[in-house]
Amino acid sequence: MASERLHLHICEQLRDLVEILQDPSPPPICLPHDASADPDHVSCAEDHGEVPNDAVPRFHLEKAVSHESLVIGAIENAFKHMDDQIERERGSQHLAGGCCALAAIYLMGKFYVANAGDSRHLLLDQAVQALPDLALNISKNGAIIIRNGEIIPMSREFTPETERQRLQFLALLKPELLGKEFTHLEFPRRVQPKELGKKMLYRDQNMNGWAYKKIEEADLKFPLIFGEGKKARMMATIGVTRGLGDHDLKVFSSNIHIKPFLSCFPEVRVYDLTQYEHCPDDVLVLGTDGLWDVTNDQEVAGVVMEVLTSYEPNDPCRYTMVAQELVVRSRGVLKERGWRLANDKLGSGDDISVFVIPLGGPGNYT
Amino acid sequence: MASERLHLHICEQLRDLVEILQDPSPPPICLPHDASADPDHVSCAEDHGEVPNDAVPRFHLEKAVSHESLVIGAIENAFKHMDDQIERERGSQHLAGGCCALAAIYLMGKFYVANAGDSRHLLLDQAVQALPDLALNISKNGAIIIRNGEIIPMSREFTPETERQRLQFLALLKPELLGKEFTHLEFPRRVQPKELGKKMLYRDQNMNGWAYKKIEEADLKFPLIFGEGKKARMMATIGVTRGLGDHDLKVFSSNIHIKPFLSCFPEVRVYDLTQYEHCPDDVLVLGTDGLWDVTNDQEVAGVVMEVLTSYEPNDPCRYTMVAQELVVRSRGVLKERGWRLANDKLGSGDDISVFVIPLGGPGNYT
Repeated sequence: MASERLHLHICEQLRDLVEILQDPSPPPICLPHDASADPDHVSCAEDHGEVPNDAVPRFHLEKAVSHESLVIGAIENAFKHMDDQIERERGSQHLAGGCCALAAIYLMGKFYVANAGDSRHLLLDQAVQALPDLALNISKNGAIIIRNGEIIPMSREFTPETERQRLQFLALLKPELLGKEFTHLEFPRRVQPKELGKKMLYRDQNMNGWAYKKIEEADLKFPLIFGEGKKARMMATIGVTRGLGDHDLKVFSSNIHIKPFLSCFPEVRVYDLTQYEHCPDDVLVLGTDGLWDVTNDQEVAGVVMEVLTSYEPNDPCRYTMVAQELVVRSRGVLKERGWRLANDKLGSGDDISVFVIPLGGPGNYT
Repeated sequence: MASERLHLHICEQLRDLVEILQDPSPPPICLPHDASADPDHVSCAEDHGEVPNDAVPRFHLEKAVSHESLVIGAIENAFKHMDDQIERERGSQHLAGGCCALAAIYLMGKFYVANAGDSRHLLLDQAVQALPDLALNISKNGAIIIRNGEIIPMSREFTPETERQRLQFLALLKPELLGKEFTHLEFPRRVQPKELGKKMLYRDQNMNGWAYKKIEEADLKFPLIFGEGKKARMMATIGVTRGLGDHDLKVFSSNIHIKPFLSCFPEVRVYDLTQYEHCPDDVLVLGTDGLWDVTNDQEVAGVVMEVLTSYEPNDPCRYTMVAQELVVRSRGVLKERGWRLANDKLGSGDDISVFVIPLGGPGNYT
């Protein structure tokens, strides 16, 4: 359901821009009072002839804003509106929890891949909807483009580790959010009371490196960011720092809210399809955590190329078969000791959804 | 003077780590009460056998901390201590203003290049000191490595544009820092009172793209970040967002302090010299704004290669000659209409200091 709603929010944001995006001239910096009532929007830039008395020349510098950055802003705001809607309706709709979101939007020759999160937890909804020009993946998110055998990452993870400095900065400026239970400093492990007065490694919101500091009473609090890799957690609770929902999530047996630290804003990466001549084997792969938990970019690229070569280049089924193969391999086969992968590791127990989107378009090649 | 002091601060921070860095085992997470009194430091990690009653297993996860990240932390803290010293002594030493800083530290096979700033203004001191293993450049800063003709950037600029989101986030959380004069939102140009109620492009601390918002009274304030490229300014005052000093800098004819928005922390990039076999033409180039204002990475690399090939590979003068040539070309020649570059553009009127440091070492080759 969340994926459908997010789809609507993105469409709604983009709808307002249709005329502006179709006009090759730079987007107007200012629109008239009611743009919808007056579709022939007038740029305020036209007023530039008259300089107000209080203006000095530098006030009239104008920053160039591209069409592309309007689309990015529209997608960013769509995620925000989606998050606001979840907040409003979570009571009436019985929506608890939260989710990550990955959206791929194809518009005017470009792919926009928007990613908020990297969740292995707290899935709101595993329904995934594929639409011709808008694929939405609600769950953990990962997207790569495979072009001529080369891997181009289209998303990155947002975890307590990758967003550590943002989270520590917020905690430093708003210490009340930590509820006296947490310290904004990071330590390589929990500080023990008997270590008071000793020097321990730490880092704060400004540091990328580590240094020693003398342990004080306040350092005995639990670190805001703790653990490493898949075990990294914020406030000992959550392993993801961007996503939708989770408005009521609190630290276990406390009244400390997690939401102020979560961002619902995606990172939007743009891939210009017109910059390259794409062949039928060039694809965009979107996958949920069920895929990425048990595999990596290189393995996915290997499967993509292996399966695609076993079909004719103009066979429209070949992309579906790649997606199916990626799902099957991530699930593994049922053995005595449960679902096992080819390497005998445990198969993915999570939702596995995969989209494989041809960049050259099926049927364009002979 | 600032460069000498910063040098001392870096040495001081690193001195505390000498024994730890020489020990190939991982750095101890915790040191005893007084490490200097007891040079045979004992890792608290040795205590791990005894599990305190209140501990749950995850408290004993230990994050791996590398020697490299200790050096980075030491350099970061040295910059902080330098900034604190300037704050303390600015009255007695008559130190007004501030500066950017670039430091290159060679330690145990690695170059650490630490960069805070990108200033074209407010130079505290143009004295630059070159030392065998520690080159300090107080001024605008730029460092590149040229290896086998390839350019490897070793620093990036910190400007109101590159640090926009950090600055907007701080302004949002601490609006009192804006003194009712500024808005944390960015607009492509100054909003005019007659535009109230119209829709204008903006972006906030979460956005990379632009979107339209209805102009309200609060949006008539001056944007925290304004202008573009070399003309980008924070609070209409300063074009650099990292550096040392400037503790008393205020917005013109106001009581609004700039310093809370400035960071004295450098970004430290590490280059491992042992990973490559370097030839005599591989160099690290550090330059002040006098160099980078009138040239770019490619032009610098071109001059480096041109001059180096005109000298024998084992001539120790060749690196000095490169630096000299880069300075001469940035200054230009005096013509009727002032100092002019080869392309007839205005030569650099600023301090031009250049270091060219061989990575293969002079005299190592025949």
